[in-house]
This record gives sequence, structure tokens and C-alpha cells, in this order.
Amino acid sequence: MKQFISVNDVKDVKKLIDKAIKLKKNTFKKKKICKTIGLVFFNPSLRTRLSSQKAAFNIGCNTWILNIDSYSWKIETSDGSVMNYTQEHIKEAIGVMSLYCDILAVRTFPGLLDREYDYEEILLKKIIKYSKVPVVNLESATLHPLQSLADLITIEEFKKKKKIKIVLSWAPHIKALPQSVPNSFIEWVKKIKDIKLYITNPYGYNLNSYFTNGIKLIHNQNEAFKNADFIYAKNWSSYDNYGKILCKDLSWTITKKKMKLTNEAKFMHCLPVRRNLVVEDSVLDDKNSIVLNQAENRIVATQTVFLEILENI
Amino acid sequence: MKQFISVNDVKDVKKLIDKAIKLKKNTFKKKKICKTIGLVFFNPSLRTRLSSQKAAFNIGCNTWILNIDSYSWKIETSDGSVMNYTQEHIKEAIGVMSLYCDILAVRTFPGLLDREYDYEEILLKKIIKYSKVPVVNLESATLHPLQSLADLITIEEFKKKKKIKIVLSWAPHIKALPQSVPNSFIEWVKKIKDIKLYITNPYGYNLNSYFTNGIKLIHNQNEAFKNADFIYAKNWSSYDNYGKILCKDLSWTITKKKMKLTNEAKFMHCLPVRRNLVVEDSVLDDKNSIVLNQAENRIVATQTVFLEILENI
Amino acid sequence: MKQFISVNDVKDVKKLIDKAIKLKKNTFKKKKICKTIGLVFFNPSLRTRLSSQKAAFNIGCNTWILNIDSYSWKIETSDGSVMNYTQEHIKEAIGVMSLYCDILAVRTFPGLLDREYDYEEILLKKIIKYSKVPVVNLESATLHPLQSLADLITIEEFKKKKKIKIVLSWAPHIKALPQSVPNSFIEWVKKIKDIKLYITNPYGYNLNSYFTNGIKLIHNQNEAFKNADFIYAKNWSSYDNYGKILCKDLSWTITKKKMKLTNEAKFMHCLPVRRNLVVEDSVLDDKNSIVLNQAENRIVATQTVFLEILENI
Repeated sequence: MKQFISVNDVKDVKKLIDKAIKLKKNTFKKKKICKTIGLVFFNPSLRTRLSSQKAAFNIGCNTWILNIDSYSWKIETSDGSVMNYTQEHIKEAIGVMSLYCDILAVRTFPGLLDREYDYEEILLKKIIKYSKVPVVNLESATLHPLQSLADLITIEEFKKKKKIKIVLSWAPHIKALPQSVPNSFIEWVKKIKDIKLYITNPYGYNLNSYFTNGIKLIHNQNEAFKNADFIYAKNWSSYDNYGKILCKDLSWTITKKKMKLTNEAKFMHCLPVRRNLVVEDSVLDDKNSIVLNQAENRIVATQTVFLEILENI
Repeated sequence: MKQFISVNDVKDVKKLIDKAIKLKKNTFKKKKICKTIGLVFFNPSLRTRLSSQKAAFNIGCNTWILNIDSYSWKIETSDGSVMNYTQEHIKEAIGVMSLYCDILAVRTFPGLLDREYDYEEILLKKIIKYSKVPVVNLESATLHPLQSLADLITIEEFKKKKKIKIVLSWAPHIKALPQSVPNSFIEWVKKIKDIKLYITNPYGYNLNSYFTNGIKLIHNQNEAFKNADFIYAKNWSSYDNYGKILCKDLSWTITKKKMKLTNEAKFMHCLPVRRNLVVEDSVLDDKNSIVLNQAENRIVATQTVFLEILENI
Repeated sequence: MKQFISVNDVKDVKKLIDKAIKLKKNTFKKKKICKTIGLVFFNPSLRTRLSSQKAAFNIGCNTWILNIDSYSWKIETSDGSVMNYTQEHIKEAIGVMSLYCDILAVRTFPGLLDREYDYEEILLKKIIKYSKVPVVNLESATLHPLQSLADLITIEEFKKKKKIKIVLSWAPHIKALPQSVPNSFIEWVKKIKDIKLYITNPYGYNLNSYFTNGIKLIHNQNEAFKNADFIYAKNWSSYDNYGKILCKDLSWTITKKKMKLTNEAKFMHCLPVRRNLVVEDSVLDDKNSIVLNQAENRIVATQTVFLEILENI
């Protein structure tokens, strides 16, 4: 693997998942690699920050972390401008950072203001352009591939039969959230033969058709839940009316009652989750909730990707 | 050892101190353990942050650090609420963090507003409840056991005779400080046979009787200092009039003159210390000041506790 | 080497450079040292922070980082005062930090308000005084020796003939910047026989004669550039009119046209650099720009210094 930006960097998704599951069983048996992973956060993070460090430690790598925040300095991303108000151009900033590590793993969030800018992944593309080492996407403006890999590993571990039905369900939230988690989830699930994916969301919340193309969309959430083996709940802001909150309808909250419509479905969410807004306590605290398993699998997902890249250097 | 929350988690305090002193002499001779220690700070820290890292490094462990601060996100600690204003529930936050390490070491300060809430150690108890791995207390609302262990190691190193007199003396300060250091110090000293402990503080500053029960309290500081072998100075806010500053009387500042009343006592303080408020320069800069030795012993105290727990996993 | 504060701590600069170049070729062949480097930042940093960590990792050392910032606490640097407004005296702060590491590497910037205070290096001197372990200067009020060492390594790698001409050129900037990089660069270059150094800056921008003594100063930038083999661009605030900005004249910006006056000179800058203010895009993006090489050599420079000190402990 030469980089890890989206599912398109993976030759065989099924093989990658199998490799991860194998690795998970033998966490401490692999050789020490002694490389340095640079972790750059343009935006806050808990799971990604900590699981990336743990993943690096597990394969004998070091990490450094850089928060591009108030303690840091203002980065110029446009070309040709006179830098009267910014302190360092992204060309030098990323160029230098990448010289100080063997993999550059970066988080860059969307502004949710300009859809073209976000979906063009302008910032991420510049980072890839200026980096001297392979780049790993720790969630970008529109994609979160490490989360999807962890999700698929978790589904593989918990599925009870070969062919399964998964429902990706929108859920209410009070803030405008990115579309990266659902986008990537759809993109990755499409690579797995025996998963039948359905999406359910209110009118106005259809995701980018580049991703949803070919996936069945049902606006009636109860209808969609029937016979599901996995429910993946997630809020996202509107794609059509870009970055806007059009609906806070709590009838979309995932409840115990709705879960009863399913085939004793496992409940999934990428976390952090707002309880009793996105999902009721009773669902999250039920034995069928596998949200912590997803979080735990972030380690092995990241570890597998780091290894795939380092083996290729 | 299954966790390290208070002295009650230690089977034999004397043996633990002996183990630490032995370990200190052979810092670099022990085997590499290769585990990960998660360090979570709900409040700022210097000594604890750095000594915990050094302790982990000394036994071949990795660390990650998480500051629950402005760069992070708002944690919900109450149950059942609709999370309109908080971003992640402590159940998920601690659950996930604990999956990313082998020991979860946490600092949580008191609010000093609600005595029952603080003394019930509500936050720490939730952390213990939701953690999947052993928890180490890096100072909680009412306890600071790692400081006490370091203090006892230091006393063991500096005492000149078998039976000694120690005076825990209140000292003035301009801010309302927690009671955790004196509480734990009393609790730990009680476990050591040959120490005679006295407390001296102004009226209104008596500590929680759960801790001070059986310890001689003398309101006259000069009287208390007589023949002391160790003076442990520390400010704390009022327990009775909870969290309040009732007195800023500088006649309680530890001076050279007062130290002359003692049996050439060693001077102790857990640091940070405000000079010429808590204690005069002349005392802190004297050869009998062992405050840096206490700070140094934070490393071996923490190292010993990590080892005790990891050997038990 | 007992410490690394300025070029005066180096016995033989040429030998140190040779050692670094040798080390660079064999980065992963040296023995694991397993010591701890403490990195303390009184001011923000990117290159220094990350390259110091990478340097430590490369020689098998651990690091901890402490930012003396808003999350931390207020340090008292004056002696004898009643600490009503500061939380910890530098004597305890540095004393304790130094007990938690084997080398204490510290960044301290100038205030640019009081020339005597800055040039006396009051803060750095107190740090050296109170540290129990060797101190490494990660840029102080008036010096940046690790940058200079990296610069000399880079010059050694890129020079095309034995005797070379280097021009240190002032360039415009909108903020008042320290004089540490030019000061140290001059001090270090003076130790190398075959470099002829010239300085060019506007009137009012002459550096401290302690450093510039014996170096040719030319106020006409075009004149100075003639036949140069290396151009080192850098802004600094006035020394005479201390810390002030006297000139923002963009005719001092380094341009392609000016570079044509040179002997196909390599372009150097310590970064971060404001594009089209300090230097035109066309110069920075040219094949003769070696600014990223300088940044990369920060690793091996730091690594060499850490090794020199650790071998001496």
C-alpha cells in the first residue's frame, strides 16, 4: 500500500480485513519496526489520537503529535499570496513535518461552508502533494477510511450468518456534522459481497450520489429497520443544502422499540455519541450494542494500515 | 495490586516502600514490559505528568496523554440526560480510553463547592466503573496516594532514628486548595508504626475526622514544632466551611525561626510551593529541605505501583 | 560535551560537523541508549519540537514535552519575592523537571523589550543554574546553536568548492523577530576556515558587534550578492533601536533577479518563512533552494549533540 486516503488505495478489502483479524490475535508477536509515525491534527480528536498511538506502539514504532491549534501558527494554503497574515506556507509546513517521520497521518475536517472546496479535498490533496512520505487519512473533509475498516472488522466478528442486512440510519443532532463517516462506510461496504446495505434518512438528507449510487434508500426508518442484522446510526448535515441542519426530529432517535423491528440487530456508532438524542440509553447499554468493539478495532485497523505501508517502503 | 486508588489497595505499606527503595537502586536493570500507560488529566499537572511518563519509560512502557481541556470535548457525567450540551458520556469516553491502554491513570480535582460530591469521589468512582483496565489515582478530589507513597519513601531515606515525630502543618495561601495531600499523607502515615504524627492548623481548618481520627491536633504551631524530626507544610482550604479561605495569617508561614524549635527537622512540601507565603526562602534553600527528594521519589513510587499492577494482570 | 548553550561548548566545530554527516549515513546502526530527553517550551515551536523528538527516537531515547503555556502555571523568575501571583519558582520548576530526565532541552524566547535582560540570557542562565542535568539550548533569547549546526552541515553537503562566499541578508517582515538565528550563524561560521561571510542589512539593523566584529558589512544588498555561493535570508528586528521594526522596504525581499547576481547560490532560510515578503515564490521553489535540507538536518544536528552529551555523562 502506498498511501491510505480512501478505499481505492486498498487492492483487496476482504484480505485486509482478514489480515487485521489475524493480527489482532497475535498483537505482541510481530517484529519491532522502529519507525516514526507523525500524527498531525488540524482538528480535535480522542479515539483517533489514542488508537493511532496505541497502534504505533503495538508495532514498535514511535509517534510524535502536532496540534495545529492556538499554540501553533497560522498556515497559508493558497498559492502566490503575500504572507502578511499567515506564518508558514503548507508547502514548507508539510514538507518539513514529513521529513521528521516515516508515515504522515493527518486529520483535516470540512468547513461545511463550501461544498466544492470540501469535496475536492483541497487541503488533503495539498498535504499529499507536499509530503515526502506516505500519507494516512485520519479523517478528512469527506472520508474516514480507518473508521470504516474498523467497522468492517467488527461486523466480520459479530455477524451470525453469511449474508447480512445492514441499515445506515441518520439520527438527530444539534450540531452540523461532517458526512465523512457515512460516505466512507458506504464506499467500503460496497466492496463486500455478502452485505446488503440500506440507507434511511429524512428528506433533504440524501448523501452525495457518488457514494449512494446503487444503494437502496428508504425514507421510512421503521420500514428500513425490518430484519436488519446491524443498525449503524450516525448524524450528518445536509449534502444538498450543504452543511445545514434541516431537521432535529427526535422521532428519528434510535430507540429500543425500533430495534425490536430488527433481526436482533447489533447496534453500531462511531462515537462520540450524544445519548438520548442520537440513541436512547437502553439501546447503547444493551448487550447488542457493539460501539466499544468498533472503538477497540480502531487500533488493529490502524496497525494493519501502518504495517501495509511500512512493508512497502 | 488490582488498582491504586487509596492506601486501602495496598496489602502491606512497609513492604511496598521497601520494594520501591530496592527498585530505585536498580532502575535500569529490570525487564522491558512493553505495555501502554494511559495518562488522563482532567486538571493541569507538571510533576505528576512528567514523573508518570518517566516511571513508565523506566519499566519499558509507552504512554499516551490526554488533556480533558479546551482542545478536547465536554464530557457528560450524569446518567439519563439528553445530551444537548455535552459531547460524550463518561461511559463511552472512559470505556474507549481504557481499551487503548493497560493501565488508566487519571487526575481529577475537587470542585471545592459541594463537599458531599467531592468526598463521595463521584467522578473517580465512575471512571473505575467504566474502565476495562486497572485505574491509578493521579490525585483525585480527596486523595493523592502516589504523593504519599513518595513522601514515605523520602522519610525512610532521611530519618536518622527509628522512632520519629512528624508535624503536618497548615500554611497560608491565597487560593483555595484541595485537601487531598494532607488526607492521604495522614492515611498512609497511620500504616507506619514508628511515626508519631501531629497536625497543626488554625481554628476552622480541621480536616475530615475520617482521616484525623486518633491523630493529635495542636492549634499552637510553635508548640507543635517542638522536637519534630520532619515538618510537612501544606495549605488546604477549610473542610468545615467547605472550600473556603478563612485565614491568610502570615504568622503561619514556615520560617527559619520556627524550624529552630524542631529537632533539626527536615522540611517537606509536595510542590508547587509559593515562596515567602507558605514558607520562607531560607527554609526552602536550607540543606534540611528535602522537597526535591520528594519530587524525585515520585518516579520510583509510580514505577513501583505500575509494576505491582502489571505483574497482576 | 557538558552542555550545549552556544558554539563555545564545542571543542572542535569541524569535527562535530563531520561526526554529524557520518551519523546521518548510519542513522539506524547506533546502539540504543534508553535515556530520557525532557523538552521544555516556554514558546511555540514546530521544527524544534518534532526534530528533537525524532533525534531522540533515532538514538533509542524517550522524550517528554512540557509546554509552559495557558494549560500550565505561572513561573516566578525573580528571587526573594512573596509569590502572591505566581505559582512556582523557577528553582523548583527546573529542579524538578531536571530530575525527571537525563538532558533538559529548553526553548526560551526574548521579550524584545529590554536588551540587557535578553542579552544577559537571564532566564537561560537560571535554568542552567537550577538544572541537575546537562542543558541543551533549543533557541534562547539571543542564540540558536542547533540551527547553526544544521546550517553548517547543510552547507558542507551542498558546497561545490573549498572556499566559499556566504551572504547573510536581512529581509523584510511585518513582525519584530529575534536576532538569535543570525547571531548564532555568525558565531558558528567564524569557526570554519574556508567560509568568507558577508552581512547585508539596511541602516539601523546592524547586529550586536560582539557577533559581527570582523565580518564585512555591506548596506547595498545587490553589491553584497555578487558571486555569493550561498544566500542566507533572515529577518531580524533592530538591535540598536532594540526590538523595533524600522523598515518594511520590500526592495529587500529576495527575488529571482537578485539571485542572478550570485554564483548560482544556494538559497537558505531557517523557516518558517513568509512567502513573497521575505522571499519570492520563484526563489523558494527553485532547485537551488535548500531550506528543506536545512530543516531535515535539524534531526542529525540534535542527534549528534544529544550523543556528545550522553557519552559524557
